[in-house]
Amino acid sequence: MAFQLEPYLKERRALVEAELKKVYPDGSPQALREATEYSLLAGGKRLRPILALAAAEAVGGRAEDALAPALALEMIHSYSLIHDDLPAMDNDDLRRGRPTNHKVYGEGMAILAGDALLTDAFYVIGKVAKQVSGSDGGALGSRAARCVLEVAHAAGSAGMVGGQVLDIQATGKKQTEQQLVDIHRMKTGALFVAAVVCGAIMGGANPDTVERLRRFAQHAGLGFQIIDDVLDVTQDSATLGKPQGSDAAAGKTTYVDVLGIDGAKARAADCLKKALAEIDALGANAQALSAIAKYLIDRDR
Amino acid sequence: MAFQLEPYLKERRALVEAELKKVYPDGSPQALREATEYSLLAGGKRLRPILALAAAEAVGGRAEDALAPALALEMIHSYSLIHDDLPAMDNDDLRRGRPTNHKVYGEGMAILAGDALLTDAFYVIGKVAKQVSGSDGGALGSRAARCVLEVAHAAGSAGMVGGQVLDIQATGKKQTEQQLVDIHRMKTGALFVAAVVCGAIMGGANPDTVERLRRFAQHAGLGFQIIDDVLDVTQDSATLGKPQGSDAAAGKTTYVDVLGIDGAKARAADCLKKALAEIDALGANAQALSAIAKYLIDRDR
Repeated sequence: MAFQLEPYLKERRALVEAELKKVYPDGSPQALREATEYSLLAGGKRLRPILALAAAEAVGGRAEDALAPALALEMIHSYSLIHDDLPAMDNDDLRRGRPTNHKVYGEGMAILAGDALLTDAFYVIGKVAKQVSGSDGGALGSRAARCVLEVAHAAGSAGMVGGQVLDIQATGKKQTEQQLVDIHRMKTGALFVAAVVCGAIMGGANPDTVERLRRFAQHAGLGFQIIDDVLDVTQDSATLGKPQGSDAAAGKTTYVDVLGIDGAKARAADCLKKALAEIDALGANAQALSAIAKYLIDRDR
Repeated sequence: MAFQLEPYLKERRALVEAELKKVYPDGSPQALREATEYSLLAGGKRLRPILALAAAEAVGGRAEDALAPALALEMIHSYSLIHDDLPAMDNDDLRRGRPTNHKVYGEGMAILAGDALLTDAFYVIGKVAKQVSGSDGGALGSRAARCVLEVAHAAGSAGMVGGQVLDIQATGKKQTEQQLVDIHRMKTGALFVAAVVCGAIMGGANPDTVERLRRFAQHAGLGFQIIDDVLDVTQDSATLGKPQGSDAAAGKTTYVDVLGIDGAKARAADCLKKALAEIDALGANAQALSAIAKYLIDRDR
């Protein structure tokens, strides 16, 4: 029977959400936990953690071994949404149809909730990394220690936060295709790539395979972003869940601006092809990862 | 010749400041680096990193081996000041006699600068933790991997961020001594303790010695906080560098409120005595650490 993506995603989302309820260190104040859980448990596709688990399986490892960086990356994604929505940033009142974090808990608590999620993400990886001198020879601990660098680099000033700064600076100024690629590689691509790379590391991949999966994720992440830009101008607001043309309205250069709709679609298809070629040699172990890449790029919503 | 603390602190401050200029990952945008350096390189006593280096020496290790967590903790301290000063938090316009970060770079950039410092702190530790499978047998890498958990726990929702939430909730409400101790243990004590513990870990201390140094830091951190409260009511504004009685004005319960001035002084002296007793067995290696503890508690400014 062919691989069924929908039930796979549903089951993995349920696993991730059950685990996200257990990430808090003992002693975190109830009020802070409420504010963080409001955003962390607000649904969403859970793409980053699911990619990490699928990458661990793709290299012949066990999905559950990749849980720590998987959860950490979702916590970091959640913190970034809380801080992005703040009045001093995008000033959004709604996120996924609900009031944004600062509208419910106030700006001060929203800043702290984001800070807590970001820091606790490293607590989650650190709990596994600490087992580096463990009785099992410390294999998982050593792998988690390597993930600390991947996650911190992807989320920090040379990754997501830096990309956010470049994006703000670029708003209202026409960008070249290369500038667009650089912003997206840092702002949104880096966490996707870290998810896949950390999954591969935790699954026990050798260095060559880790780099092969890194290239897979870079191509797939770029294709995903290009299709996002295409859908922003071709789909109606109801399908998008946000106003059609919101990128243009926000003064952002898009891949449609620099490539045209057909050119952008062709570029995204090329990204998907290159991504799939990187993991072709992994065979049946990579069937979920391949299916997710197709789902991310060959889509109409 | 007796140990001279002043030249020691001066030399260590210079070392820490030189190293803080090199913490950024390649590819972090210039505008973001400017905003983070404005706060990170704005001076300060550099107590946390100096404590980490001194703790490494106290256990017979090398100070330079503790640099990664030392720098990380200073970056985290710096991010916490940037976020604390924001209008939605303490709304401060001045810090160390200069305009606060958001007054110079705007609130959005100040939030991002804090986020970047916090994340890059784990990048700095992660670079060493990655060497867990290194050619030296990975000793430093393994130690750094253990520091990830110490730092993340101390800075996150069960540490500094959680303490900040408790402190906000307590403002304007009379606290018991135990409640005060709990707030300070999380809000300010946890980073002090992490500095000493990570220094000991990086210096190669055995588990018993690490726990001994943890108790040293808990006592010393509490004594430091108690003396802060005493000085807030006994010193004039010029000596303090902030208005006298600012804790009471901010609606905070202090150790002077619950113990009286003489009681608080006696409690601080007791903390110092207990702290020094924990490291007495370390002998001459711990002379800097002892001197710093005395300097932190037996002071009048």
